[in-house]
Amino acid sequence: MENPLIPPLNFSMAAPGIYRSGYPNSMNHAFMKKLRLKTILYLCPEEYSESNTAWCETNGVRVVQCGILPNKEPFQFIPDDVVADALRVLLDRRNHPVLMHCNSGKHRSGVVIGSMRKMQQWSLTSIFDEYRRFAGSKVRILDQQFIELFRVDTVKYDKRCAPRWLK
Amino acid sequence: MENPLIPPLNFSMAAPGIYRSGYPNSMNHAFMKKLRLKTILYLCPEEYSESNTAWCETNGVRVVQCGILPNKEPFQFIPDDVVADALRVLLDRRNHPVLMHCNSGKHRSGVVIGSMRKMQQWSLTSIFDEYRRFAGSKVRILDQQFIELFRVDTVKYDKRCAPRWLK
Repeated sequence: MENPLIPPLNFSMAAPGIYRSGYPNSMNHAFMKKLRLKTILYLCPEEYSESNTAWCETNGVRVVQCGILPNKEPFQFIPDDVVADALRVLLDRRNHPVLMHCNSGKHRSGVVIGSMRKMQQWSLTSIFDEYRRFAGSKVRILDQQFIELFRVDTVKYDKRCAPRWLK
Repeated sequence: MENPLIPPLNFSMAAPGIYRSGYPNSMNHAFMKKLRLKTILYLCPEEYSESNTAWCETNGVRVVQCGILPNKEPFQFIPDDVVADALRVLLDRRNHPVLMHCNSGKHRSGVVIGSMRKMQQWSLTSIFDEYRRFAGSKVRILDQQFIELFRVDTVKYDKRCAPRWLK
């Protein structure tokens, strides 16, 4: 058998054109090549890893960074406007296929996808169930609260370039 | 706000054109309409529910049944050939978009998707991690063993109609 393909941690397809995961490393590059990505949406404030930056350059993948600090009790809250920025990138089909990732693929990615589900009008029960599927025993109430309170009308995305499934 | 959309239990996108979930009911029909399904692949041996049958007729969705009895220790084993049949339906893009479902969206669906991941050459670690994400505390060793031993060369699918991401 050939070498197996190794998706990044917590990898999943969230919607047509949109993938989510934890932080990829060089062991994941062969897998990622199969996705024919156009964009990587990187959700951490730290500088992007050298190995991923080099891989993206070689493969013509654009890296967009929306640096988010995760929710942390009692005083660190994810700001609404950065999530709205991330959603604007995610919901522009000119960027598709896009892989969005944070570190573990649990919290920041979960918050952005949960907010996207709100725009898709999913029930909160379904949104939280999907969030929990990735966060496992690390569910954060503040993340769920963010999603519950997130106002979808603050996302000023370009409707002409929105994916068909959002309409 | 309009009525929220309710995806079926354990709903997820497994790959372009392929969705998986637990058994849908009438509360999920508005959500399912948005998927513009062509096919439902039903993995249980029992007759399909009246409400889903009627919905599929109204919406021009073809129902294909591959009845599988779940793994159950000590003597009930999922047969390889029915899983190969299910994969043949799943991997024909003329059937896409397709929603595959069993009862809970955990075990039978997990086995079929896990076997598909093997065809995609995913590492077993990644396959089992995805399986566990849906099965939660109900992980079945026999399911994982099925996936590990499954011989992908027994799936006689039509390569001309296979999705691009499989090639």
